Amino acid sequence: MAKKKSGRLFGGIDIGGTKILALVVDDSGAIISMSKKKTKGEAGFKAVCERANAALREAAEIENVKMESLEAVGIGVPVPVMVDGTTPPAANLPGWKNAPLIKTMETLTGRPCFAENDCNAGTYGEYVWGAGKGAKTLIGFFVGTGLGGGIIFHDQLIVGENHMATELGHVIVQEGGRICSCGHKGCLEAYAAKSGLARRLAWDTIMEGRKSMLTQMVPDGDFANIKSSALQEAYRKGDAVAVDALNEMAHYLGVGIANYITILGPDQIVIGGGVFEALGKELLPKVKESARRRTWPESSFKDTRITLSQLGDFAVGLGTVAYAMSRLDGKAGK
Amino acid sequence: MAKKKSGRLFGGIDIGGTKILALVVDDSGAIISMSKKKTKGEAGFKAVCERANAALREAAEIENVKMESLEAVGIGVPVPVMVDGTTPPAANLPGWKNAPLIKTMETLTGRPCFAENDCNAGTYGEYVWGAGKGAKTLIGFFVGTGLGGGIIFHDQLIVGENHMATELGHVIVQEGGRICSCGHKGCLEAYAAKSGLARRLAWDTIMEGRKSMLTQMVPDGDFANIKSSALQEAYRKGDAVAVDALNEMAHYLGVGIANYITILGPDQIVIGGGVFEALGKELLPKVKESARRRTWPESSFKDTRITLSQLGDFAVGLGTVAYAMSRLDGKAGK
Repeated sequence: MAKKKSGRLFGGIDIGGTKILALVVDDSGAIISMSKKKTKGEAGFKAVCERANAALREAAEIENVKMESLEAVGIGVPVPVMVDGTTPPAANLPGWKNAPLIKTMETLTGRPCFAENDCNAGTYGEYVWGAGKGAKTLIGFFVGTGLGGGIIFHDQLIVGENHMATELGHVIVQEGGRICSCGHKGCLEAYAAKSGLARRLAWDTIMEGRKSMLTQMVPDGDFANIKSSALQEAYRKGDAVAVDALNEMAHYLGVGIANYITILGPDQIVIGGGVFEALGKELLPKVKESARRRTWPESSFKDTRITLSQLGDFAVGLGTVAYAMSRLDGKAGK
Repeated sequence: MAKKKSGRLFGGIDIGGTKILALVVDDSGAIISMSKKKTKGEAGFKAVCERANAALREAAEIENVKMESLEAVGIGVPVPVMVDGTTPPAANLPGWKNAPLIKTMETLTGRPCFAENDCNAGTYGEYVWGAGKGAKTLIGFFVGTGLGGGIIFHDQLIVGENHMATELGHVIVQEGGRICSCGHKGCLEAYAAKSGLARRLAWDTIMEGRKSMLTQMVPDGDFANIKSSALQEAYRKGDAVAVDALNEMAHYLGVGIANYITILGPDQIVIGGGVFEALGKELLPKVKESARRRTWPESSFKDTRITLSQLGDFAVGLGTVAYAMSRLDGKAGK
């Protein structure tokens, strides 16, 4: 954590499903200070915004940064953000339907706020300060419970004309296949994220009775909330159920990546998220091999660098700052 | 065919696998005259360029247009076009590997030439003068022997950083599924174009022995070269084999379209090509229903207009002119 406090200062808040991470960041992307809180999403939209504001104020106070000296605050949220700064009618968090996100946060923080979907922000962070620096067309994937991502095309975040797109985990790669958390069948996320992995693990251990150390590592067979560290341990110890399931995940992420190269011809792809923080080194070669065999034309595979995230847990928080800066400077749309 | 001959004049040449269509077009997109020739691709790159040039000169002569009065010539080809105006090493036509396309056509026509892949050009044509007029993010699909397409994002053709992308038919929607003309398995094209339809028709009629009028309509069971008019007749007469196969095609095209909406959130999608020229009215509702059930988030489906092509056989020829104009005016990249 470099502490420069030089240049312009910004706030960056990553509001996740379980925790809030608030950062004070300078204009070189150096993190000056940080603070974490639980999200407590069940308390509703307003309460979450208040906790986010409190987290940012705490982060600022640690290094005696006055809120007034923050040029702007970037906010990443696990739902889309509409052009008017609200969340969409379909926002899937308690009390977040049509919520006035930017207005509320500007009132609480007293600073100009800019908000983006967390996976878009994370991709933007990698683009400006992380593994995607210098890319022209960048696609980011974040593999956790779900599979999210973002697309940057020539300095612009692609968000779709209705600001609801780049749902990169919900493309169908196995029509009629495994059911996904979204209710559709055969989505990439149903194979290449922890939610899909959980179904496979439950099938293998319960329906087929395969033995696995993972059974002991999750309470009540609740594979849906399995920690990436548990997957890492089981994979590294050669637990056959874990190895099979995670290799399948890598295989399908490769299918998805091949598709995105075939469609958009990015010069770079960055993969992050908890699972790849824990097992990136092991899984990346398998992802690449699967993608190499499915990209069209085949030569396009070698034209795309595929790397792991550099910003890790800070990708979203830093990305919101990079995004806020670009908005102040009149770039990056919305 | 409006004949205005007002304003600036351009040549537009659509070099297809079997025929060449040359147009003289004014800057409003009105076709002044046209000429057609067989491609005779087996004669090689240089000979095809000479035939393309001859076709354009014939079209010009019909209306007494001097070649010198053509401000530029747009060329659409069934391979990618690199930034230096050559075709790529993997170009799949006899003698077209690394061929100096623009240089050769500029020497032959004596005019500034601009070239693009035919499906990119066709999409651009629909964008400027066809069904996609006014769209911000437009995706075009052309369903013929293969399934090609193009993407326009905020006035720019997306071609990929290596100029080989938007191979929209070669995304995998059925991992491990039906083999595709490209050699991969489960591509969209293997289900939603005539090449895939041919495999299904052969299976149904030969392997399963189902009776179909299509068997009489193609010589030697050569379903790969079935005419769209034959499919139209069989479908409209309720031939069960044709109906099943074409409905499956519509189903899968819907899967693909759902994926593209989920990824890019276009405000419009245009579907053209021989099959949809012949059966668009019948198949479009089925395509839409399939797409509606698979788009994520579901609300994004209604934010996307899905329409048939307006320019039909002229989409590529007109598109090359629109593209050449945009290049002269410094837009549209490359």
